[in-house]
Amino acid sequence: MRHAEVTYEVQSTAADIEQFASEVLLEQTFETPREVVDRYPELAQKGRGSIQSIDEIDEGRFRLRLLIPDHNALDAAQLLNAVFGNAAIHPGVRLMDFEPTEAMARQAPGPTVGTDGIRRKLRIPTRPLTASALKPVGLPLSEIAALCEDFASSGIDVIKDDHYLSDQPACSFEERIERCAAIANEASAKHGRPIWYVPSISGTPAEVRRRVEFALEAGVKCVMLAPMTLGLPLMAEVAADHPELVVLAHPSFSPMASFTPEVLWGKLFRMFGADAIIFVNAGGRFNYSVESCRLVAATMRAPLHGLKPALPVPAGGVSVEHVEEVIGRYGNDCMLLVGGSILKARDRRDAARRFVASVEEHALLTD
Amino acid sequence: MRHAEVTYEVQSTAADIEQFASEVLLEQTFETPREVVDRYPELAQKGRGSIQSIDEIDEGRFRLRLLIPDHNALDAAQLLNAVFGNAAIHPGVRLMDFEPTEAMARQAPGPTVGTDGIRRKLRIPTRPLTASALKPVGLPLSEIAALCEDFASSGIDVIKDDHYLSDQPACSFEERIERCAAIANEASAKHGRPIWYVPSISGTPAEVRRRVEFALEAGVKCVMLAPMTLGLPLMAEVAADHPELVVLAHPSFSPMASFTPEVLWGKLFRMFGADAIIFVNAGGRFNYSVESCRLVAATMRAPLHGLKPALPVPAGGVSVEHVEEVIGRYGNDCMLLVGGSILKARDRRDAARRFVASVEEHALLTD
Repeated sequence: MRHAEVTYEVQSTAADIEQFASEVLLEQTFETPREVVDRYPELAQKGRGSIQSIDEIDEGRFRLRLLIPDHNALDAAQLLNAVFGNAAIHPGVRLMDFEPTEAMARQAPGPTVGTDGIRRKLRIPTRPLTASALKPVGLPLSEIAALCEDFASSGIDVIKDDHYLSDQPACSFEERIERCAAIANEASAKHGRPIWYVPSISGTPAEVRRRVEFALEAGVKCVMLAPMTLGLPLMAEVAADHPELVVLAHPSFSPMASFTPEVLWGKLFRMFGADAIIFVNAGGRFNYSVESCRLVAATMRAPLHGLKPALPVPAGGVSVEHVEEVIGRYGNDCMLLVGGSILKARDRRDAARRFVASVEEHALLTD
Repeated sequence: MRHAEVTYEVQSTAADIEQFASEVLLEQTFETPREVVDRYPELAQKGRGSIQSIDEIDEGRFRLRLLIPDHNALDAAQLLNAVFGNAAIHPGVRLMDFEPTEAMARQAPGPTVGTDGIRRKLRIPTRPLTASALKPVGLPLSEIAALCEDFASSGIDVIKDDHYLSDQPACSFEERIERCAAIANEASAKHGRPIWYVPSISGTPAEVRRRVEFALEAGVKCVMLAPMTLGLPLMAEVAADHPELVVLAHPSFSPMASFTPEVLWGKLFRMFGADAIIFVNAGGRFNYSVESCRLVAATMRAPLHGLKPALPVPAGGVSVEHVEEVIGRYGNDCMLLVGGSILKARDRRDAARRFVASVEEHALLTD
């Protein structure tokens, strides 16, 4: 019998926690009264799972570790049910971590390109990668294209859409993709190495499929998806259907009161096919600790049933001045996403070039 | 300029709340430093939105109301970004409610059948509807079919799969759908009115589409989807593609630390195409108050830019003994989902019949 170890943080009282723990276990296995399950001894034996440990973290807060059988995680959506299905409905339960079995890991494709593949495609063997964003939303295509030009001519590796960009009247999806992809292609020729324009793709699954196809036709090598808005299984499907396409995941709509960043961004996003994952860097606009961010990046690269490592993309208030600090924090295997601090500069090309130069300067030595 | 009113509960201090409120507003609009936005006066004017109110609820907890322009909610996924995109990344921010503009409401289909349509299809004009569940997961098809027989012969209106059922080796998807649909069809003929078997459909979007088609071929009129595992836009797409198919939404993987039940289940599930919505009833296994549950059901039926009302399906510890109380709480326009208390009974058919009779007995008089 194979079991996933699933860790929750739960709010309860010392008097109630054992009872609550066994209720959460029942929710995550049979979701049926115990006396009904007990009528089928073989079933009860096989599927019951167990409480591995209950530890008080703090007054009224407990860490609960369950062993949950993996045999119902039979597709990508059922994998989510098995790990955090009905337990999520308790507002006082947060998913901290889980160790999937190999069978569970096989329900989603994992990164099909991964860090090494991205490096190979971009022909950047060791240094950290650079990225910036086309924003703010609302600019007409001419301004977005001018921004793309500035970034591309400065040698930024990856130029991504803002996640609010979709099919705005003044900046339509198809025109933007064609124009920005052409700018990136020209810059690639000039620099003698690939520069990527990365469109943000949203919509219903059929729209996402159409838009991915359109982007591929335009020569795009990488797309940005926000899997919490689209559904994690859709990201998994795009990744599996296009194994050479690089998937950059955006964290929008991630309900972080219910998840730790390492389990959602570090583990689930990676399992569901993200090759590179944007996450919140400590010290920026969001209040995440350095330790927590290091753990997120480490989780993206940790051994996990043979899945390729995903590339951490620290973002959210990363500025040109922080390049050395960020590389010190995550090492060379990351992509620094610097947006606002370049956009703020009077001379954007100059700021973008300083960003690129700073990353080259502060890249760690490798042997 | 049309704006959605979005209400969050945020953790902050009295000293920081104004600054934090304006940061959340910026995240939900331009996600770009203010000085950059200000370079484009027309853009800043049009897209900035505003802080409508900040109220302290409790020490360190505030209710924040923002007006957010609707012009970026251009598809189903972008609608989610606009309401709770980057704001969700703050673990201390919970989405309480939002009032979509008409343009936002048009990005998702809403219930295509709705409460009246379900009543018309089932030929039940006024009384509350009855439902039960095929479980626990792990039973072989023969046992699941026997359960389905018991419920169908007892006259339960809707017999749904447990949400952990997918394509188990001992109870494969296709065999289960064909067998249970046939049982429901026979019972319909016997009772002279429709009895529905409702399969749970999961997987990646392509699998979901295939399975929905298979279910339709087998004569199924209603399917169960768990939109938080599948992605809300996929549920919207299934609803839009099959306007006569009844969509029953299951709340699994709903991250309730980040949402109120009324906004997620009452509003978003309905907007994204659910005709009937399973939610947690007060007094059952989950700790929701009667007031909160009444508000969830009321939200499913409230006027919302011409969307059809969705049918509330209270569940989770509803037993035969609670029928009168539950009908008193939600009125006739609901579907009572009673699972465990029937399964526990020695004579399931008898318990199921008592459930059906109790609902008929306690239905409210209408004029």
